[in-house]
Formats: sequence, structure tokens, C-alpha cells
Amino acid sequence: MSNPSVPIQSDPSAHSGVKALKCRECGRRYELLAIHVCEFCFGPLEVEYDYEVIGRKISRKSIEAGPVSLWRYKDLLPVLGEPTAGLHAGMTPLVRADRLGRALGLKNLYVKNDTVNHPTLSFKDRVVAVATTRARELGFTTIACASTGNLANSVSAHAASCGMECFVFIPHDLEAGKVLGNLIYKPTVVSVKGTYDDVNRLCSEIGAEYPWAFVNINIRPYYAEGSKSLAFETAEQLGWRVPDQVVVPIASGSLLTKIWKGFHEFTRLGLVDENPLLKVNGAQASGCSPVYQAYVSGKNHIVPVRPNTIAKSLAIGNPADGFYALDVVGKSGGQVEQATDSEIIDGMKLLAETEGIFAETAGGVTVACLKKLAEKGAIRPDELTVAYITGNGLKTMEALAGSLSQPVSIDPNLSSFRQIVNPKS
Amino acid sequence: MSNPSVPIQSDPSAHSGVKALKCRECGRRYELLAIHVCEFCFGPLEVEYDYEVIGRKISRKSIEAGPVSLWRYKDLLPVLGEPTAGLHAGMTPLVRADRLGRALGLKNLYVKNDTVNHPTLSFKDRVVAVATTRARELGFTTIACASTGNLANSVSAHAASCGMECFVFIPHDLEAGKVLGNLIYKPTVVSVKGTYDDVNRLCSEIGAEYPWAFVNINIRPYYAEGSKSLAFETAEQLGWRVPDQVVVPIASGSLLTKIWKGFHEFTRLGLVDENPLLKVNGAQASGCSPVYQAYVSGKNHIVPVRPNTIAKSLAIGNPADGFYALDVVGKSGGQVEQATDSEIIDGMKLLAETEGIFAETAGGVTVACLKKLAEKGAIRPDELTVAYITGNGLKTMEALAGSLSQPVSIDPNLSSFRQIVNPKS
Ligand SMILES: Cc1ncc(COP(=O)(O)O)c(C=O)c1O
Ligand SMILES: Cc1ncc(COP(=O)(O)O)c(C=O)c1O
Ligand SMILES: [Zn+2]
Ligand SMILES: [Zn+2]
Repeated sequence: MSNPSVPIQSDPSAHSGVKALKCRECGRRYELLAIHVCEFCFGPLEVEYDYEVIGRKISRKSIEAGPVSLWRYKDLLPVLGEPTAGLHAGMTPLVRADRLGRALGLKNLYVKNDTVNHPTLSFKDRVVAVATTRARELGFTTIACASTGNLANSVSAHAASCGMECFVFIPHDLEAGKVLGNLIYKPTVVSVKGTYDDVNRLCSEIGAEYPWAFVNINIRPYYAEGSKSLAFETAEQLGWRVPDQVVVPIASGSLLTKIWKGFHEFTRLGLVDENPLLKVNGAQASGCSPVYQAYVSGKNHIVPVRPNTIAKSLAIGNPADGFYALDVVGKSGGQVEQATDSEIIDGMKLLAETEGIFAETAGGVTVACLKKLAEKGAIRPDELTVAYITGNGLKTMEALAGSLSQPVSIDPNLSSFRQIVNPKS
Repeated sequence: MSNPSVPIQSDPSAHSGVKALKCRECGRRYELLAIHVCEFCFGPLEVEYDYEVIGRKISRKSIEAGPVSLWRYKDLLPVLGEPTAGLHAGMTPLVRADRLGRALGLKNLYVKNDTVNHPTLSFKDRVVAVATTRARELGFTTIACASTGNLANSVSAHAASCGMECFVFIPHDLEAGKVLGNLIYKPTVVSVKGTYDDVNRLCSEIGAEYPWAFVNINIRPYYAEGSKSLAFETAEQLGWRVPDQVVVPIASGSLLTKIWKGFHEFTRLGLVDENPLLKVNGAQASGCSPVYQAYVSGKNHIVPVRPNTIAKSLAIGNPADGFYALDVVGKSGGQVEQATDSEIIDGMKLLAETEGIFAETAGGVTVACLKKLAEKGAIRPDELTVAYITGNGLKTMEALAGSLSQPVSIDPNLSSFRQIVNPKS
């Protein structure tokens, strides 16, 4: 299946900047196939690019002339032909967050708002756009995933829009919005009695038996690259600048590592000036914080945990890329923070009340951890800071049960209004 | 308050193309204030523009150089200064809908997808962006609305992000997602025991007593113009073309009339070629179809009805702009259709299963009516057709109760998977 000793250019698209898969540990190279683990050392495979080739094609101008979607950065994404799925993913608003900033003592704060990503309202539409396009290039007709919720929603929607067969695997205890957000697209939804980590293990076994594109297993090297678009867009929307601080939620850890990679690719290609200040901070829920635990104890390996948190989308107890996320945090000089369930809810409310953005629990984690980082001075008031808000609050309504005041009920007449509401002005 | 006989240019912004408010019935002109009804004939007021002034400023180029939001069309929106609210509303995807088209026998179909509008996932973010900016220009510090749900969500979010006081009025029987989608932003949510029409009547009375900007009452002339951006974006995203057929859901009727107006403004300004074929079709729920009833009976006045439909966002029994909507349909050569509750659900499913877009009940109404129009040949296969999908399905989850198959439940092991799911491939 692979010939690790030489770089392989078997694909017709000879001018592509996408070179090979490469083992992150031993450096062996593999063909651009549906594989994700090194046969020799079991290290994870990552897409390798030829930045010289890409550098000759890409410029601020070429990007600005591209579509209003993440495909404007196609030269830096691991597909060989034209995109065939997720054509409208990405290019979500970068929102100047002065009111949230004031609440936290930060003067230069932005929120990258993937709560309105197309089509399923989370950053997963980015990775799935890339994974689905690549899976089709590789000839797959069935697409699948192991998911904490958002990924399944996105895979289901993209499969429907492409007319592909679809199987999504979720833990049995997901929120109603996340379950319905699969069913409406009519995939096979498999609810597994166990945690996400159980689901993931089972899917690895299934993936060995069925010729399916599991977007976050055998297609993972391509899939993960989609998250770089969050960095690319941030830099472009800031007027071609790299921020000083970013805060990123961590589940498997892939998102965080790819945001870092995205900024570095832009810098390397001269699309932005280098910002040696850039610090990448991680955010986890206290009820599932294996990366945070390793960070605070100064270890560089992750001890798996059993999740128990309202931030179900982040409830991965044994994060595949936890080690690499920790590494990025460390070498950038960032930190990892954690937030309790009640801090998560306060974070969701604070974001909504100051910026009018209704995020899911994962967004509450990000805001709560941003707050802690600001309070302890890890993020200073003037630093250009971007918080990544990665999913929509309508999918995790259960988390707010009992936490919000209720509507005031009146009869349909002015006297009832005066009597019961009686506003000052 | 007003001097109806002369056009008034009291505002500092002398070069603006926004001239005055003008009565749609008797033509009297009014200052650009927070008023919506003619003092003489009780006709509705509409914003009047100076297209000569605008024509000297606007071009395809100037628009393309603008922000990725509806504010790229600012010259055609009724604000005098820079936008101060809803900076990221609009510029939602225009999705080429080949799979839905195939299901309906249409070869040239697009879906304008406002299910991912920023920040609250419906087209109301457009009208509220304009209304809030204008309300602030007029000095208001409190913003309010009477709503079937989506408008309240959007007003609540925009008030939060601007730090304004906020009161939203809703009928007591709204979906949980629409109620929570207000509360999270912490406005005063007033739940009124009655229909939307009761809520609206009450709000007119309240508006007379409190110095509030009711976006769809005293601010309505400005508010309503925001919907034109759906036409502007459609034309630009089609490569500066006007479609042959559009299908638009009707509640008050404002949206439909403004989409028509938008295409005509673009044509008048030479931004697009005239398309004399353009037909504007209306879509209503059978459980609340006063405009459809008038259309089929050939009357030009609307008889109010008492709503009873799962499409709660469209449940306006006495539509303020119903007469004008009917007029646009008639003079464009379009039609009005209606859809039963079960057809609405089938429409939601069809859109999700073919295009991967999860719309609310109003979107189900649009798709179901599009289907009927195609089936009876009112829309022919080759016509360039755009269906307006105006709100997100996560807000109306109740409507699908019992209509979707459930997840398959398994234990976390391969044998349970084989036994219970047992897929062919
Ligand atoms: C909303 C949301 N944010 C963040 C993440 C974290 O992504 P990763 O697993 O790449 O760390 C997830 C993962 O499912 C998610 O659903
Ligand atoms: C989702 C949705 N679509 C369409 C409409 C119709 O808008 P109009 O009242 O302008 O006819 C509404 C109105 O609330 C709505 O919420
Ligand atoms: Zn290796
Ligand atoms: Zn009049």
C-alpha cells in the first residue's frame, strides 16, 4: 500500500503543492491514501506540502479573489481537484468584541464566530468540507464518523448534499438538538452505550472491516487540515495580521494544533509578518480536562479520564492529539485553563449578554477560560486576542435548564402589561 | 411633527440618497422620523430614495469592494451614517440546489440560505441590523418588537450587542428554541396570552405610551427595507442577474414586497439587466393563509384568519402588508401557494435529505409550495429559480416530533454492531 522511503507523486495533479502523508514521529512518507497511522512506529500521519510550489501560486490577491468560503485557501488544503462538498463552509464573521472585552478588562478582543458556520453551525463544517471532498477523490461512496455531536451533524448534512451513504456513531447521552441534527438528514445514526472514547474505539474496529471513509479515523490526516482555515480567516480578517493570543477549546486537540499550523504556514509563505508573540491557549471543561491536568502537573503525556461535564462536545477523555496540543501550548508560551460546569454556563451567558452571540457549552468553556487568563494576567489588556467560538447554543439547550429567568406572562391588554411588567421608561 | 407638502432634507447628511418617508397611498411626504402611518389617510409610510444621487455613487465595483455583509448595499438602505449594529448580517450562501431540483424536476434551482444568518439564524437579522442602526441614529436607547419568534431572537441579540434596553413580545405558545433564543440575551421577554395579532395590537398601544423603538411598528419603514438585501445578494451571487422565479414565505407580507423592490432597484440603477420574466411567488401555511385565500378567490383585500399551523413564525392572521404582497404577486405574474402541516414537514425533510440544509417550518412551507408550483408547471424546468429559506430548523424541533426515525442503539462492541446494524457493504 505504501512505499515509505520515497516521496510519492502518484496523483495526476502534478502541480499540486500536496506532496505526501508523513509520519509525525519517524518521518516516513506514505501515498495520499485513506490511512492515518504509520506502519512502522504507529505515529499519526500528517499531510506534507511543498511550500515552494504553493508559494508560487498563492498571494493575498489570489486569496481575496477566491470564493467567500474556506476554499479561498485551497492551495493550503489537502485536496487535488476542485472542491465537491461543503462549498459554503467557513468565512464566518470575526466579531470585534468590545463589550465582552470591557467585561474582562481586554481592549483588543475578537470572537471568531463559528456558531453560524454553513451548514450545521459549528467549526466541524470546515473539517468535513475537506474530508468529504478528499473522500470522494479517493473513491469512497460511504462516509462515517465517531462524534461527540457536532461532527456527526456535519457529516450527516454533507453526505445528504452529496448523495452519499452515511453512518454516524454517537454516545447515547447527547443533547436532543445534536441527535435531531443528525436524524433530519436521514443517515444511519448509531447510538452507542458508552462514552465517546468507547465510540471511537468501536469505530476503529468497524473501519477495519468496512470500506468507509471515517472522516476522523482513516481520513483524519485530510480532515484535520480543514481547521487551519480558522487561522487563515482570522489573519485575513484582521487585515493580514497574526494575533498575539488565541484561546481554543480542546477535545481531541486537533483544532488547537491546526490553528497554530495555519498561522505558521501563512507566515512562512510571507502572507503575514511573523508575530513571535503569538501564544496559543487551550480551554477545557473541568469535568474532562486531561490536557489541562498534564499541563498543570508539568507532564508531557496525557492520562486518560472518564468525562463528566455539560460540555459534551468536548468530552473526550483520551484525546488523540492531546500530546501535540500540549506541545503547541508549551512552545508558544500559552497556557491551558479549565472551567467548571457553572463557569461554563456563566461564560455562555456573558457572551450572549455582551455580544449577542449564543454559543454552545464549548463556547462557554472558551469564554470562561479566556476570563481566567485575563484575570491572572496571562493575557494582557492591549494584546490582540482572538477567542474561538466553535458551536451554536441551540444545540445544547439542556445545559441552560434552570439557569435563565423565565418570560413574564400577561394578558393581551395594556392594563395587564402595566400591572405586571410596569417598566420605568 | 411633519410637513407633508414638501420633501424634507433636515438631516445633516445632505449627500445621502435617502430622501423622506412617503405615504404609499396618498404620496404625502414626512421627515425621516420614527413614524409609520400617514396622518391623513392612514396609509403605510415607505422610505423614498433619490436614485440619481445613489446612481452616482453605486456600482458593481463599489459593492464588491464593500464588507462581506448586507452593508455592502448601504447606499440603498435607510441609514444616514455608518452602521452601528448587525455589522455581520447577510451575505449568506446562495446554494446551487441540483439534488433538490432533480427531486422537483427543476434544472436551475438555488436556495438562498438564511438558516446561517448572523447572529440569530434567520432573515430577521437583516431587518434588525437596519432597524437598530436607524433607531440609534434617531436617539432611541430602548428597542422592542412584536414577534412570531425569529424577530424577537434577533432584536434581543442586537440589543445585547449594543447595550440597549430591550423588550420583546411574543405569543405564549412559541417553540422552546425560540423562547430560549430570547432569554439567553437577557431582554425582558413578555409572553402574551393570545395570537400574534393580539400581541401586535397590544404593542401598538404600548408604543404610543413609551419612548421605545418598536422595530416593526414605529421603525417599520426602515426595518422593512433590510429585506431588500436578500434580492441584492441573490442578484450579485448569480453573477449580476435577476432570476426568473422566486418563492418567498409570507407572514406580514413585508419580505415578499421588499424582495421585489430590491430587484427593481438594482435594475433601475443598471446594476443588472432587466428580467421581464421575474415572477414573485408567495408561500403560506394552510393553517394561516389569508393571502393565499385572497389570491385564489381573486379578491384584492385580505380577510383575517385565526392561525392554526405548525409554521408559527408565519402565523399572522391579519398581515399588515398582505395587500401589497398580493399586488406584487399579481403584477409579476406569480402565484400564491399553501402547504398543510404534513406537507411542511415533508418539505423540511426533503430539503435536508437533498441539500443538507435544516430549515425551520417556514422553510418547509417554501419547499412544499415550490414543489406544488413545479408540479403544476407554474415554474418550468429551465427557469432560473430561487427559493428563500429564511430560518433554522433547530428553533422548531417540536414540529418534527414523531416524524423522524430514531437512532439505532447498540453496545460498544463489534458484535453488537454486526447484530443490530448489519450494513450491507
Ligand atoms: C464545538 C466544538 N468545539 C471544539 C471542539 C474540539 O475539537 P478537537 O477535537 O479538534 O479538539 C469540538 C469537537 O468535537 C466541538 O464540537
Ligand atoms: C422564518 C421566517 N420566514 C418568513 C417570515 C415572513 O416575513 P414577513 O412578515 O415579512 O412576511 C417570517 C416572519 O416572521 C419568519 O420568521
Ligand atoms: Zn512513523
Ligand atoms: Zn397618506
